[in-house]
Amino acid sequence: MKYTIIAIGDELLIGQVTDTNSGWIARHLTPYGWEADCVRVISDDAQAITRAIDEAFERTDVVLMTGGLGPTKDDITKPALCGYFGGELVYDETTAANVRTVMQKRNLQVNEYTRLQAMVPTSCRVIQNQVGTAPIMWFERDGKVLVSMPGVPHETETMMEREVIPQLIKRFHRDEVILFRTFMVMGIIESELAMMLDEFERNLPQTMHLAYLPQPGLMRLRLTGISTDGETLRTHMAQRESELHKLLGKAIIADEDISLAEIVGRKLREKGLTLSTAESCTGGNIAHVITEIAGSSDYFKGTVVSYANDVKTRVLGVSQEALDSEGAVSQPVVEQMVCGVSKLLQTHCAVATSGVAGPSGGTPEKPVGTVWMAAKCGDRVVSQVKRLPGDRRRVIDRATTEVLLMLLRMLQDM
Amino acid sequence: MKYTIIAIGDELLIGQVTDTNSGWIARHLTPYGWEADCVRVISDDAQAITRAIDEAFERTDVVLMTGGLGPTKDDITKPALCGYFGGELVYDETTAANVRTVMQKRNLQVNEYTRLQAMVPTSCRVIQNQVGTAPIMWFERDGKVLVSMPGVPHETETMMEREVIPQLIKRFHRDEVILFRTFMVMGIIESELAMMLDEFERNLPQTMHLAYLPQPGLMRLRLTGISTDGETLRTHMAQRESELHKLLGKAIIADEDISLAEIVGRKLREKGLTLSTAESCTGGNIAHVITEIAGSSDYFKGTVVSYANDVKTRVLGVSQEALDSEGAVSQPVVEQMVCGVSKLLQTHCAVATSGVAGPSGGTPEKPVGTVWMAAKCGDRVVSQVKRLPGDRRRVIDRATTEVLLMLLRMLQDM
Repeated sequence: MKYTIIAIGDELLIGQVTDTNSGWIARHLTPYGWEADCVRVISDDAQAITRAIDEAFERTDVVLMTGGLGPTKDDITKPALCGYFGGELVYDETTAANVRTVMQKRNLQVNEYTRLQAMVPTSCRVIQNQVGTAPIMWFERDGKVLVSMPGVPHETETMMEREVIPQLIKRFHRDEVILFRTFMVMGIIESELAMMLDEFERNLPQTMHLAYLPQPGLMRLRLTGISTDGETLRTHMAQRESELHKLLGKAIIADEDISLAEIVGRKLREKGLTLSTAESCTGGNIAHVITEIAGSSDYFKGTVVSYANDVKTRVLGVSQEALDSEGAVSQPVVEQMVCGVSKLLQTHCAVATSGVAGPSGGTPEKPVGTVWMAAKCGDRVVSQVKRLPGDRRRVIDRATTEVLLMLLRMLQDM
Repeated sequence: MKYTIIAIGDELLIGQVTDTNSGWIARHLTPYGWEADCVRVISDDAQAITRAIDEAFERTDVVLMTGGLGPTKDDITKPALCGYFGGELVYDETTAANVRTVMQKRNLQVNEYTRLQAMVPTSCRVIQNQVGTAPIMWFERDGKVLVSMPGVPHETETMMEREVIPQLIKRFHRDEVILFRTFMVMGIIESELAMMLDEFERNLPQTMHLAYLPQPGLMRLRLTGISTDGETLRTHMAQRESELHKLLGKAIIADEDISLAEIVGRKLREKGLTLSTAESCTGGNIAHVITEIAGSSDYFKGTVVSYANDVKTRVLGVSQEALDSEGAVSQPVVEQMVCGVSKLLQTHCAVATSGVAGPSGGTPEKPVGTVWMAAKCGDRVVSQVKRLPGDRRRVIDRATTEVLLMLLRMLQDM
């Protein structure tokens, strides 16, 4: 089933807010064989909305729309949809009751603006929003469907999962089978990988396709198959999977689309090991990406962010001598940090970083982007220095990835 | 100047990668009075590319395109553009030399695939990519301009800043003045704010517009003015700015679009105070958002992430008694954490969190989303408990925001 996403909001078009709804919708409809034809991000403007719907319905039968439903004056989606599909805006008692329930749950009073949320076009079927005040509106005409949802990500995500996706699947169904496999590959750059997989790609059947999705420090490979003959497709997919494993060996660190932190976490859990981090330039980001994973408390014990040098010495036991002679961004300091934190927090494994994230603080010997990293498993400590490109944000992200890759390699070798 | 953004990539349409380029481009062109008419996200498909360009040129004279230029086989943007603008793909020696330079800087060898990057349409002017191998291509026909850039965010960002934006501004110029002011507002929900500002909004001149951009726990208000009469607009803007300050008072915590962590950081620097954090459920995220700010080492000393209870007792000095009688997610524990970390890391101020981020670990008394938070300034300690909605990721983000708001209120009262 092909569909179009229309995301409405001036704030999206000036870049003040990033549209994450469209990606979420696509990720959650793809497994059902639904294919986004196009995403259109447009402004809060009735003409733009009408034009976008016209163009979308020319090519697809389903339009999923987000945004433009807030209670304030800059939102005009509802009247625009009412103009497009006909009918009139009326006060709907069921919707009003839902708005009251949602506001009560948040300990808030319904006011003049939230009351306006209960005005809905007579031409739509309302799906009550269980987690927000903007009603979800399902329009249908000549076999074409448009669903209007709020711009607030968690409202659209929750209501898509609970109501909109099941209702869409029920309304449209088809018999093509779609299979996906994602492989996370470590240590091979895109162009090298392309050469290694050249023959593999050329020999893929018509029904299958390989895509390269580079991330900093990692590569995601996505193998897709679409066919009405599900059985043959499954056989082909299984063959290609084992072929890829033969070709890439240990470079494949996961057979699904999961984060590096999650891959490391699984290895630690598998081996019954615990982890701590000592962070200077990454400032807690390593701990953050690890603890984003549900269940990370099984193996993660804690962190010392030692931004100040006296925290490095007093808390982590880094020697003043090493700091004085080599500076904070140095091999002895980062190695003392990794040993200090694993001792203090009593963990089997640890990682540590110390670097110049920028934009200031660089020197000719240690320019911005210079990061010393260390990883420890049991008694074994390894360290490396990297000169990472990009701004502060990128240096932090990249150092986080690099030090987790160091740890993963140590865990693989155990 | 109106323009269209076209983002190309199957990975965007299945939601595996989020398109951040479009927002970046919009944010950086808006100050020049450039207005994105629409963003179209389309697949790696020659027909889709041609159609999107046709539709875009119908409404705007400039198209900025990202993506589809990687060396692997699933990218077809270059031949599609060559088909659209005419000419043929030829091997360009200058581009080849640039690819070699970029690869050498990364200590990589040019291979068959990176060599293909030097193939460019004869119908374009190449802007050499200083930070990647995909050339940037500037096409021009009948007064309309299309610039094709890579999908890798840092390449497009860097080259937009260095070359593309200056060249676009030089090529097109207009005399409208555009002014923006963003105000960060704390503690008032959108619908309440809309009521408070109802008259203010109604009295705005035709040239001005107010937008509400809610974020969890905060509201951004954006006041925009566009006019050919710059002087009058500046006067109006100044009047409206002071009017907003009168109406909202201390609820306005910043006069520009900066993060809460940055607002807190400025207050700390202003008062010469230092900060540390003790984090359980936020797992280092508070430290992370603080240290994302350049210069945060002026006031931020460090963090203890105490995911495990023995780290709370041994490192932060939380009493075993409090843990046993009240549990880790409790007022005494979070207060002992905030005092413990400020003592250990020797800081004037500190914040602490302990909660149930989920998805598991909830109980009837302390369901998922329950977070105890404490903030400390000098001898004063405040604490609160909140029941935060949403998934793990949202609970962590929201707890980070809420505890920084607590600290900000304490700093405002000093």
